[in-house]
Amino acid sequence: MAAPCVTLLTDFGMSDGYVGAVKGVILALCPRAQLIDVAHDIAPGDILAGAVALMTSAATFPAGCVHLAVVDPGVGTDRSGLIVESGGSYFVGPDNGLLSLATTASRRAWKLDHPQWFRDRVHSTFHGRDVFAPVAARLADGVSPELLGSAVERIVTLEIPPAVHRDGGVVGEILLADRFGNLITTLREDDLPASRAATVVTIAGGESCPIVESYGFASKDTLVAVVGSGGFLEISSVGGSAREHLGAAGVRGTPVRVTAG
Amino acid sequence: MAAPCVTLLTDFGMSDGYVGAVKGVILALCPRAQLIDVAHDIAPGDILAGAVALMTSAATFPAGCVHLAVVDPGVGTDRSGLIVESGGSYFVGPDNGLLSLATTASRRAWKLDHPQWFRDRVHSTFHGRDVFAPVAARLADGVSPELLGSAVERIVTLEIPPAVHRDGGVVGEILLADRFGNLITTLREDDLPASRAATVVTIAGGESCPIVESYGFASKDTLVAVVGSGGFLEISSVGGSAREHLGAAGVRGTPVRVTAG
Amino acid sequence: MAAPCVTLLTDFGMSDGYVGAVKGVILALCPRAQLIDVAHDIAPGDILAGAVALMTSAATFPAGCVHLAVVDPGVGTDRSGLIVESGGSYFVGPDNGLLSLATTASRRAWKLDHPQWFRDRVHSTFHGRDVFAPVAARLADGVSPELLGSAVERIVTLEIPPAVHRDGGVVGEILLADRFGNLITTLREDDLPASRAATVVTIAGGESCPIVESYGFASKDTLVAVVGSGGFLEISSVGGSAREHLGAAGVRGTPVRVTAG
Repeated sequence: MAAPCVTLLTDFGMSDGYVGAVKGVILALCPRAQLIDVAHDIAPGDILAGAVALMTSAATFPAGCVHLAVVDPGVGTDRSGLIVESGGSYFVGPDNGLLSLATTASRRAWKLDHPQWFRDRVHSTFHGRDVFAPVAARLADGVSPELLGSAVERIVTLEIPPAVHRDGGVVGEILLADRFGNLITTLREDDLPASRAATVVTIAGGESCPIVESYGFASKDTLVAVVGSGGFLEISSVGGSAREHLGAAGVRGTPVRVTAG
Repeated sequence: MAAPCVTLLTDFGMSDGYVGAVKGVILALCPRAQLIDVAHDIAPGDILAGAVALMTSAATFPAGCVHLAVVDPGVGTDRSGLIVESGGSYFVGPDNGLLSLATTASRRAWKLDHPQWFRDRVHSTFHGRDVFAPVAARLADGVSPELLGSAVERIVTLEIPPAVHRDGGVVGEILLADRFGNLITTLREDDLPASRAATVVTIAGGESCPIVESYGFASKDTLVAVVGSGGFLEISSVGGSAREHLGAAGVRGTPVRVTAG
Repeated sequence: MAAPCVTLLTDFGMSDGYVGAVKGVILALCPRAQLIDVAHDIAPGDILAGAVALMTSAATFPAGCVHLAVVDPGVGTDRSGLIVESGGSYFVGPDNGLLSLATTASRRAWKLDHPQWFRDRVHSTFHGRDVFAPVAARLADGVSPELLGSAVERIVTLEIPPAVHRDGGVVGEILLADRFGNLITTLREDDLPASRAATVVTIAGGESCPIVESYGFASKDTLVAVVGSGGFLEISSVGGSAREHLGAAGVRGTPVRVTAG
């Protein structure tokens, strides 16, 4: 049997011992766990960026994995810890929205209120090590979520604002920038006009660009829009960074408008 | 039996092939080794930062692991290589203090002076690949440290300066900043006043802040002190970076004073 | 039997879900694969830097590994995908030169033109997830490359320009900078004068430095040249960054001249 898979997504970076401390706890409790690094350079405290990365990542893993995610600016306050089951996999992390985008289908959730499963001393600034890691290890080892927490009906969820159809166009906004400086928008493929031949994408009422099939179909430093691999429209600068290209017009929340030509 | 675990902590970054070269050597010699990345973004040559990260990380791993650590500005000079055994685990790396903070309890050490265990050609700039990786692989494979090196009594050690009690307060200093911009100090939990209710922490004789339970207990951009997850007092800026907040007053060695209110 | 090893080298970074998405695809198709992170912080789109890192890394892995590499600015255009077999290991990635430096010996190659092995829907901006990952997983699982693609005679190759011997010296150029700010040149150990005692290395006709055995043999902030661990001459600033030291004179393509003293 393949070893149980535990993925790790955090904002801990790789310049301190925090990621290692989490891994050590898991391996001490479940030595046969297969640890898979997903992303540790989420911007510190950026719950939305973590939630989008978790959604992108978890989509391809086989059922039965445990996805541990920690972007947790409220650590040590009264926000809860969670196990969420969705699509046959488990997600473990803080109840701050981080787990919500990856678990939209048929979600079941448990609140982590059974301290006997935590580390002996829970430190108020490092639940990743002292609460979430031991719980993830037990899930990987086959312990049932019913034993690890109490069922809850609701969890904190992030919402990606729906597209607004107005004046013959559709309007969304910039959600976040990725490592390449691509600006992921809230507009989904289904929101776009059926024919994209003459479609124009306008950012913040200023610069505009066409929708193309992929980055390589325009010349360097040209602004283009593509339907990205997660199904959202994104703005890119060919061979460069749209975030840098657009500057202040490229930040989260900036309106993006699509009109058929 | 679970595969032997080898953790890796370096300042090699993830933008070159150096981490890969080290991993390849280990897997060529011990294919069943389970490689665990701990931290590769230690600031180049920052032995203290590496030693603290190794201490943080290794504390949670089960006994029997091999912890390979390479932050090695003196590579190729006459500094020795080491195996250190502590708490039932092995540490492999340069004798420059890097291994010292993680191995304070009941340490045994061996100098790596048996070149027959190294790669055929040892390159003077890459002992991580040519000396430390093959030795770590052999330890993971069950070779005794007595065969791999010669016992030594002393290793180079880093000291975290002890707290100084003076004028009714206790004085330490800033040790380093973590990824979040938290400033870890040399003051341990035991150094602090028993009651923290009215305690004041003063940095460099200037800005001051209270000790709180966790970051979430103060408003954004407020300076607070918390007892961090490693047991050291640390200065944080809520939702931001204390290092940026304090600027020149936030560097290594800056005095930090704690006084009961 | 040890699990089949799949190494991953990308420019995806660790701040998004892209690396995770690739890993999930591999584990879904080959759950026993052992995933080894090599480098994910290659500068976005920098094919040469990726090719050099892959060459550095793959050199030490045992035969039989699958090396997945994705630095792919032309994704979605008509550039092909490849499997390359070299030295008993497989390399999978775009046909843009990325795989060429690591596979110079006895190379066989197949073009990825059998979509039945790809993910059901191939997205034009993410062949790493939809084309290369499933192919790498099948190779790890034992599927023959003949089944996965069509044999091709030629692949796109990068060339490291050969040294030019002129006026009693030898001239090469700066190839790239590593994380430490070391400037790797195109000059190989064999290109250098047999005796290095009085040899002088001159960068861009300006600053010059001696060749030393390792960084530790000169004082801090001194410019030195060493034969690096990959066999190329490199320029370093002791305890600092030669790239920063040299500024505009330290970029790719800058001429470097070596003369016997």
